[in-house]
Amino acid sequence: MNEAIHYQPIGIIHSPFSKREGMPIQPIGASGIKGTVEVFPEFQQGLMDIEGFSHIILVYHFHRVSGSKLLVTPFLDSQLRGVFATRAPTRPNPIGMSTVKLREREQNILHIENIDILDGTPLLDIKPYIPECDHQTVERTGWLERVKGKVSQGKSDDRFK
Amino acid sequence: MNEAIHYQPIGIIHSPFSKREGMPIQPIGASGIKGTVEVFPEFQQGLMDIEGFSHIILVYHFHRVSGSKLLVTPFLDSQLRGVFATRAPTRPNPIGMSTVKLREREQNILHIENIDILDGTPLLDIKPYIPECDHQTVERTGWLERVKGKVSQGKSDDRFK
Repeated sequence: MNEAIHYQPIGIIHSPFSKREGMPIQPIGASGIKGTVEVFPEFQQGLMDIEGFSHIILVYHFHRVSGSKLLVTPFLDSQLRGVFATRAPTRPNPIGMSTVKLREREQNILHIENIDILDGTPLLDIKPYIPECDHQTVERTGWLERVKGKVSQGKSDDRFK
Repeated sequence: MNEAIHYQPIGIIHSPFSKREGMPIQPIGASGIKGTVEVFPEFQQGLMDIEGFSHIILVYHFHRVSGSKLLVTPFLDSQLRGVFATRAPTRPNPIGMSTVKLREREQNILHIENIDILDGTPLLDIKPYIPECDHQTVERTGWLERVKGKVSQGKSDDRFK
């Protein structure tokens, strides 16, 4: 059960952000910022039909983070929180997830918008954003209720280096 | 760049589904179905504050799938589609993602609802569902537009064994 799981990057994410400082902390703060997803040619066939979707979920590896922390002080907050109650990158398995706008596909290259991801990030998976699965009507958003409406203004710093 | 990435399960998902046949294909079809997430005790501290959120995103490894297919015929469809335009489990990196309702936490055990995941599935990560990040207003949902409103009725079969 506790065996290691091995994954292989299927591509690379290219963005204007070469360092974490000043980067938007979520796609909502990255409105209009453009980037590309380079899917390695051997996986290009798997992109068929993806251009039909206006939004896609990128699943990627936080490659610049070393070591995990179970308690973190998230952006927008000043208190320690359990890492699983945050989107901080210092997770036991540093898997990131961002929903971005898909503008166009050119063969194995996806042109995307609203990108909050570091340049050179290894891509693990792409999923179509499906409102029936991914829209949820929530009752509670925990510690984030205090900062509602501010996620789009949050900028990253180097605390999770 | 193309180096292997190693992850370690942080827990196990327990559900009433011991086989894929007849399982709901998405949480929306699993309304009210209960399960538990057992987070290994060494990661329990990371769960602090999670009970504040009504919905969480489980990231897990499709452990019963062997081998990937770049083209698949998804549930609800009869045509081959690129795997990245579907949520099928036979992905190059078999990473699954489900948003479920969090009912209660008892130490390292999360009681969840709306579960569409096989019993015994290795858990990789938990993220809070944050509407500002995870709600998207989409313009297009590709091949799924034809089956709008039917995702909740979809049941799994053994096509991705």
